[in-house]
Amino acid sequence: MNKNVIVGQSGGPTAVINCSLAGVFLSALGNPKMGKIFGMRNGVKGLLEKRYINMGDYVKNQADLDLLKVTPSSFLGSCRYKLPSPAGSDEDRAVFAQIFEILNELEIGYFFYIGGNDSMDTIMKLSTYGEEINSPIRFIGVPKTIDNDLAGTDHSPGFGSAAKYVATSTKEIILDAQVYNNGAVTIIEAMGRNTGWLAASASLAKGDDCVGVDAIYLPEVAFDMDSFLNKISNLTQNNYSPVVVVSEGIKLADGRYISELGRENVSVDAFGHMQLTGTASYLAAQVKSKTGAKARAIEFATLQRCATHLQSATDAKEAFELGFKAVNAASEGQTNVVVTINRLSNNPYSFQISATQISTMANVEKTVPLEWITPTKDHVTDDYIKYALPLIQGESKTFIENGLPKHLKI
Amino acid sequence: MNKNVIVGQSGGPTAVINCSLAGVFLSALGNPKMGKIFGMRNGVKGLLEKRYINMGDYVKNQADLDLLKVTPSSFLGSCRYKLPSPAGSDEDRAVFAQIFEILNELEIGYFFYIGGNDSMDTIMKLSTYGEEINSPIRFIGVPKTIDNDLAGTDHSPGFGSAAKYVATSTKEIILDAQVYNNGAVTIIEAMGRNTGWLAASASLAKGDDCVGVDAIYLPEVAFDMDSFLNKISNLTQNNYSPVVVVSEGIKLADGRYISELGRENVSVDAFGHMQLTGTASYLAAQVKSKTGAKARAIEFATLQRCATHLQSATDAKEAFELGFKAVNAASEGQTNVVVTINRLSNNPYSFQISATQISTMANVEKTVPLEWITPTKDHVTDDYIKYALPLIQGESKTFIENGLPKHLKI
Repeated sequence: MNKNVIVGQSGGPTAVINCSLAGVFLSALGNPKMGKIFGMRNGVKGLLEKRYINMGDYVKNQADLDLLKVTPSSFLGSCRYKLPSPAGSDEDRAVFAQIFEILNELEIGYFFYIGGNDSMDTIMKLSTYGEEINSPIRFIGVPKTIDNDLAGTDHSPGFGSAAKYVATSTKEIILDAQVYNNGAVTIIEAMGRNTGWLAASASLAKGDDCVGVDAIYLPEVAFDMDSFLNKISNLTQNNYSPVVVVSEGIKLADGRYISELGRENVSVDAFGHMQLTGTASYLAAQVKSKTGAKARAIEFATLQRCATHLQSATDAKEAFELGFKAVNAASEGQTNVVVTINRLSNNPYSFQISATQISTMANVEKTVPLEWITPTKDHVTDDYIKYALPLIQGESKTFIENGLPKHLKI
Repeated sequence: MNKNVIVGQSGGPTAVINCSLAGVFLSALGNPKMGKIFGMRNGVKGLLEKRYINMGDYVKNQADLDLLKVTPSSFLGSCRYKLPSPAGSDEDRAVFAQIFEILNELEIGYFFYIGGNDSMDTIMKLSTYGEEINSPIRFIGVPKTIDNDLAGTDHSPGFGSAAKYVATSTKEIILDAQVYNNGAVTIIEAMGRNTGWLAASASLAKGDDCVGVDAIYLPEVAFDMDSFLNKISNLTQNNYSPVVVVSEGIKLADGRYISELGRENVSVDAFGHMQLTGTASYLAAQVKSKTGAKARAIEFATLQRCATHLQSATDAKEAFELGFKAVNAASEGQTNVVVTINRLSNNPYSFQISATQISTMANVEKTVPLEWITPTKDHVTDDYIKYALPLIQGESKTFIENGLPKHLKI
């Protein structure tokens, strides 16, 4: 019997999260077992409030589909909502009963959730509860994250485009930083609370036409302030203007985040509100006071996850395919799985998509291998470059209107 | 008699400053009156240290020229060096004597300086001194600035590309900001110490597919903290997530910069160094403490002037033509002039280039007309849109290698 489909997006956006949505939509559209395709607004949080759309009302033709793929942010909206345990209290279980009631009302047979490890936790819990009540609904996860911290997959859709943004912008900043030949220090901050995958992608800027960054600091190893300041002092001799990159989450050997140090030393303002200092701006202040060099902090902020105009075509293609194959997996009767990428070779780059038990990914965090970090703990090795370089290849076609990229509107 | 050419770049870089350099180079190369083409490293500061290159050693063919045009930062390096008065002390005049000695050694007949109003001051002083000593050297200015604050020209090369970067990134950020539907506030900071031209370009993001920014605050009018906080409180009702844009240089009615307020309220850190707070981050802290809303600051930092990958083709073409025509003006015997853009019509957009007395531009600052700012002082009118929209049209072709834009190396 023909069953309906529902798809949601959860967690932080990526530049290709809508490619996965487009993949799910197109695959479901062509699947004879599947009927209407609903999109939940703001993930399961919106679903619980019965907020959803009929995807077909928004993606009416190929042009809409193409536009969806290069639209930044999560088209359906997102949430950070953690489901309770399906083996929990009556109150906890009532949430699941409510969700399944809504799903049954909508005659859903297939549930897709595009997200990170928290979202996989959601899929796992819904599957567990569903199995218990003998629900026929198939639950499939589609991975995404700019942090690349998902286990069970070679890499995560979203990472390649974020890396392309970081590498492109860093390459431009390196040239800009050297313009005055005055020994000024630039400290760039990339996202990554516990993993340095994205900060490390700044290493890709180096090439025949670019000296590259002078240091990269990752959260995987302890940050040593003295070594850092020594390195800066050495680099700024002869008026060289170094550029270094830090993950937002770097911490000292005693476990304190650098971003916390800024808060410790700064008083509250007139209104009792603490002035927050980011990791890069704290380090810039340290450089100024300890070495006397000029220093500037640059945070990529949300630009690194929403700059769809710099989408990696490789990343976009993989994100689409994962969404597409998630529907195939559901159609074959699989459930409680996530679609993952297995790399077959680096050069030429090739990969395979398969479905993996969701427990390998849910609530697990994959960090940069320590052997990919140099012994001096301030850069990454060629192994990282070989891993990341294929993922930033290719430029997606954007649609320009009035000089700006055009997006699909919900 | 055949005379040599020297060209320099000064002040902050723009995404098209090397297009002007390419224009000067190509025009001089084809001019039978002109011989070798030298490039001074780091402007007149480097010239005084006899640091210069032969441009032909770096730009050897059309491919190099094309690459130069999309290379970020100032290819020759820059400086912030203010010449003394040519009517000053003996010591002051010795600087001019030294410069002219170096120029004569190099058999220079034509001197081009690509820069902002400080650089035009340099051209004016060199011309004045040159005239006094009966030097035949022609001195021509080529304007550039992302701030668009140069008088005597409809607009300045570099502004269009910076505006395209600001509008593109803001359009992406607006979608990203709305993803959680949680009433969080995003405050974007654009460059512009005394003029709001660039911050105002965020207004271009609005369109059929984009709600646009909710407010823009320019330094041309006094910033009122209470009105701002009231506006934010109203906007965040019903969980709407507003995006507002500020110029770095906005100030209160009493003349204090918002960025200074942050410094007043923040203590020095353990090492005696003051933690600096930017305009946007200060306002974000205010929003959090006064309205209770979540708030985030995003600074475009140097990205807005070096993101050559988002170069406006219109801007690039104009920058090239100004460089090209500067050489023509010099060849015709003009000196002490700057090449400027006169707009002929908005739709279709057309313009004319002419040479203008440099005194109209040197040390003068052009601000956004007050009638282009809304009565509520928190947005710009359609007149601004009509003015700025033609300047962000068209995308320059970038050359990609290994997934990243390729640049010309000095």
